[in-house]
Amino acid sequence: MEIALSFEQVQSLIGESLSEGQTHQTITGIASLDEAQPGDLTFLDNLKYQDSVANSKASVVLLPLTYQGTPKLDQAFLRVRYPSQALAKVCGYLEQRTRSRPSPGIHPSAVIDPKAQIDETATIGPLCVVQQHARVGARAVLQSHIFLGSRAFVGDHSWLMPHVTVMDNCHIGERVRLNPGVVIGSEGFGYSTEEGRVIKEPQVGAVTVQDDVEIGANTTIDRARFDQTLLQAGTKIDNLVQIAHNVRIGKNCLIASQAGIAGSTVLEEAVMLGGQAGLTGHVTIGKGAKIAAQAGVANDIKSDSLVTGTPAMPLMLARRIDALKKQLPDLFKRTKKIENFIETLHLKDA
Amino acid sequence: MEIALSFEQVQSLIGESLSEGQTHQTITGIASLDEAQPGDLTFLDNLKYQDSVANSKASVVLLPLTYQGTPKLDQAFLRVRYPSQALAKVCGYLEQRTRSRPSPGIHPSAVIDPKAQIDETATIGPLCVVQQHARVGARAVLQSHIFLGSRAFVGDHSWLMPHVTVMDNCHIGERVRLNPGVVIGSEGFGYSTEEGRVIKEPQVGAVTVQDDVEIGANTTIDRARFDQTLLQAGTKIDNLVQIAHNVRIGKNCLIASQAGIAGSTVLEEAVMLGGQAGLTGHVTIGKGAKIAAQAGVANDIKSDSLVTGTPAMPLMLARRIDALKKQLPDLFKRTKKIENFIETLHLKDA
Amino acid sequence: MEIALSFEQVQSLIGESLSEGQTHQTITGIASLDEAQPGDLTFLDNLKYQDSVANSKASVVLLPLTYQGTPKLDQAFLRVRYPSQALAKVCGYLEQRTRSRPSPGIHPSAVIDPKAQIDETATIGPLCVVQQHARVGARAVLQSHIFLGSRAFVGDHSWLMPHVTVMDNCHIGERVRLNPGVVIGSEGFGYSTEEGRVIKEPQVGAVTVQDDVEIGANTTIDRARFDQTLLQAGTKIDNLVQIAHNVRIGKNCLIASQAGIAGSTVLEEAVMLGGQAGLTGHVTIGKGAKIAAQAGVANDIKSDSLVTGTPAMPLMLARRIDALKKQLPDLFKRTKKIENFIETLHLKDA
Repeated sequence: MEIALSFEQVQSLIGESLSEGQTHQTITGIASLDEAQPGDLTFLDNLKYQDSVANSKASVVLLPLTYQGTPKLDQAFLRVRYPSQALAKVCGYLEQRTRSRPSPGIHPSAVIDPKAQIDETATIGPLCVVQQHARVGARAVLQSHIFLGSRAFVGDHSWLMPHVTVMDNCHIGERVRLNPGVVIGSEGFGYSTEEGRVIKEPQVGAVTVQDDVEIGANTTIDRARFDQTLLQAGTKIDNLVQIAHNVRIGKNCLIASQAGIAGSTVLEEAVMLGGQAGLTGHVTIGKGAKIAAQAGVANDIKSDSLVTGTPAMPLMLARRIDALKKQLPDLFKRTKKIENFIETLHLKDA
Repeated sequence: MEIALSFEQVQSLIGESLSEGQTHQTITGIASLDEAQPGDLTFLDNLKYQDSVANSKASVVLLPLTYQGTPKLDQAFLRVRYPSQALAKVCGYLEQRTRSRPSPGIHPSAVIDPKAQIDETATIGPLCVVQQHARVGARAVLQSHIFLGSRAFVGDHSWLMPHVTVMDNCHIGERVRLNPGVVIGSEGFGYSTEEGRVIKEPQVGAVTVQDDVEIGANTTIDRARFDQTLLQAGTKIDNLVQIAHNVRIGKNCLIASQAGIAGSTVLEEAVMLGGQAGLTGHVTIGKGAKIAAQAGVANDIKSDSLVTGTPAMPLMLARRIDALKKQLPDLFKRTKKIENFIETLHLKDA
Repeated sequence: MEIALSFEQVQSLIGESLSEGQTHQTITGIASLDEAQPGDLTFLDNLKYQDSVANSKASVVLLPLTYQGTPKLDQAFLRVRYPSQALAKVCGYLEQRTRSRPSPGIHPSAVIDPKAQIDETATIGPLCVVQQHARVGARAVLQSHIFLGSRAFVGDHSWLMPHVTVMDNCHIGERVRLNPGVVIGSEGFGYSTEEGRVIKEPQVGAVTVQDDVEIGANTTIDRARFDQTLLQAGTKIDNLVQIAHNVRIGKNCLIASQAGIAGSTVLEEAVMLGGQAGLTGHVTIGKGAKIAAQAGVANDIKSDSLVTGTPAMPLMLARRIDALKKQLPDLFKRTKKIENFIETLHLKDA
């Protein structure tokens, strides 16, 4: 990544800020507080690391408004309300310059069905397959090795990274980002067992991914049994997540890596799932609820609640129980001691 | 999905049923009880949702024999023994019509070694690679972007969805379905450590997947150290599951998403693994045993047992302990109270 | 796998050993103790299986020095210090013969940017994409369906198996093995939420994978927010593992399947993670620490410690608590009995 930003350009990219000190260095890199060298931009977001600011060699440091301290010689502080978001603006500028959209057009190695409809401003990269009646919107990018099934749809400005699979009839909205290896529309895991035999339930539905959804690498979203597995607008999903058939996820949810959601479960708006959390099928997670990492949820969860553990329980109760669990060896000893004492009472009585 | 079925066609597809009420609507869709509109077929399987039947606008409702209630005007009930299986028959009919097997033949973009043997009724889709001495059976489908290694075998009527990898020497039986991104025959994770050094154990075995096995998206099955990792006939595996080297899975097992099975572990027939369950290496899970979601199994499990938790224990014991855990804060208080009382006895004695 | 090794060849491959008994069979296979037939080589490594030696029909058995027992007629024992490593030497020889490096050169179906630099001894297999300014070292193998992004680098002798993705700017060292479906350099999961809105933090960094690292099938490694996600030399990672942005993993770590490591966490040298273990972000795991399968780690872990459970605690404490948990039903009864007795004292008093 080649960078060359003047201090003034950094100020202009991040917007409103309080400046203290000054540097004549051109910013040629971004690095963490500890590893930054002169010429680097750095930032403090997590207060855990605030002691590292004083020793940082960075030329420009983005800091929260409340940070106490002064810059060194040839170093500038920029205090902002949200340092991480200020950095995001700089990174966004760099991303635009270094990872620009590939040129529109269809690579000659792509295999496009004559009945597919591809906007002339879209990019179909090398070795993609686009099947009959599939449609690709304006300025959408199918980067490389994409499979887009029959009657599948990709909306304007969406970006499918290498090796993404979108099966028949699935719908991808606008400005969606699908990381490498994402599978949309695999078969739902639908079987019944009857007298020892395993009977398959054919899965003839599809998946709808609404606008501004982003999905991490190798995550899998199963198609519905007969209607739609649904991811609503603005939801962000991390890597290696499993979304089963007929799941419905509300707007602006955040789902961390390796979480799994079983069939027909509903997430209302703005739910957060921690990494490796598991939700059973046919439950509802209320708006704004937060499910901790590795939690196991087998029942409905109320809006705005915060649960952890398997089976999941309110965070405060779980913390208390975890603390008491560590005192169990002591509790058993105390109970034994009480019993011994009572035994002496009995002996006295006798 | 375009549907147009008369009521009589639905009856004929599902077989034996008790009919009540009648509709003149053509069935043009399938939807859940809550979302169905006139013209839709719906079903009640999970009794949790039975209150939704009375308000459903569906034209035809598949119901269990025991359901109490009567159809509305222009609505028909069909009572059957297994509503979900009745629906499966309708979906199976639709699947056959809308997701039909692609035409036989080899797509010109596929890269086929001249020493590969491909049945003339098989379909090799675009951008597949089939290496030397690989064999593909009658009416098998390699849909798109498949890698089939040297001496690998795919049996009759099997269907490999986009981006599936089958490494050298691996054997896929008949009527097997591999969802997108499945990896068969990756290297087993075999290392020993000796005086701080990590020493690789080469993995020269393969994988055998028997008839009628189905495997979910992005699931990985490692090849054996020197013989065969084995999945026996009829077993169904969900998405993102890990099967390590030398594992042996019996007939008709059901393995839910994100479960993981470490090396050399054996599952006997008809075992069920819940989502995110983990089995350590070198243990045996007896016939018909059920391992709950997120359970962690470190020892052999007896046939037909039902275990949960980490470390796994019988379900009834685990439930009792979970209930008592929530009473721990109270138990600590009770013990403190007892100790205080005993203290007063001591004081009296003194 | 076709094998034909004389007893003397086996001896010569494994190096120093104590021989007892003899066989005239040519070794034509490798099998487990129970399944071996005359003509097979087998081994005993895990003492759990030592009773199987006496009944094994194998012609040659690799055994630990301490094994008690004598070979049968036409059977040879070879006692060695590390039987598994002795077997590894035989398997390594077979691997070299049966899975030899493909011939150097670029397959005509590969799509190579004219500005890419590919060593003339490297192999670029069918349907690979290599983008501008990417570089591939000597005798490296891109097996099939590989995506190598702009300015990405693959070092000498590394082997990328089918469907691997290496995104822009990522660096793969020498002798690295990437199993099928591995994703290197997907977008980090970086979002902040501000007043209900989800704000994306662009991820403009990359991934560095050092020499001799091996990574399992469908594992995902996110690129850093602005610098490098780092995997140091000799580390081995299993299938379906998630490594988030800015994670730093030391030398010679072993990370089992389905483990997950959240952003900016640091593993020092020689750390071992069990299957399905989860580490939160921004913590440090000390050198040589071992994290058990399914453990959930939310804090720093000291060097050489051994932890288990969620939240993670020292193994010995966890085992004690697990044993006491099973006695909870009894403890509640004992406490009730004590309370009843005290009640009788009160009654007496009254």
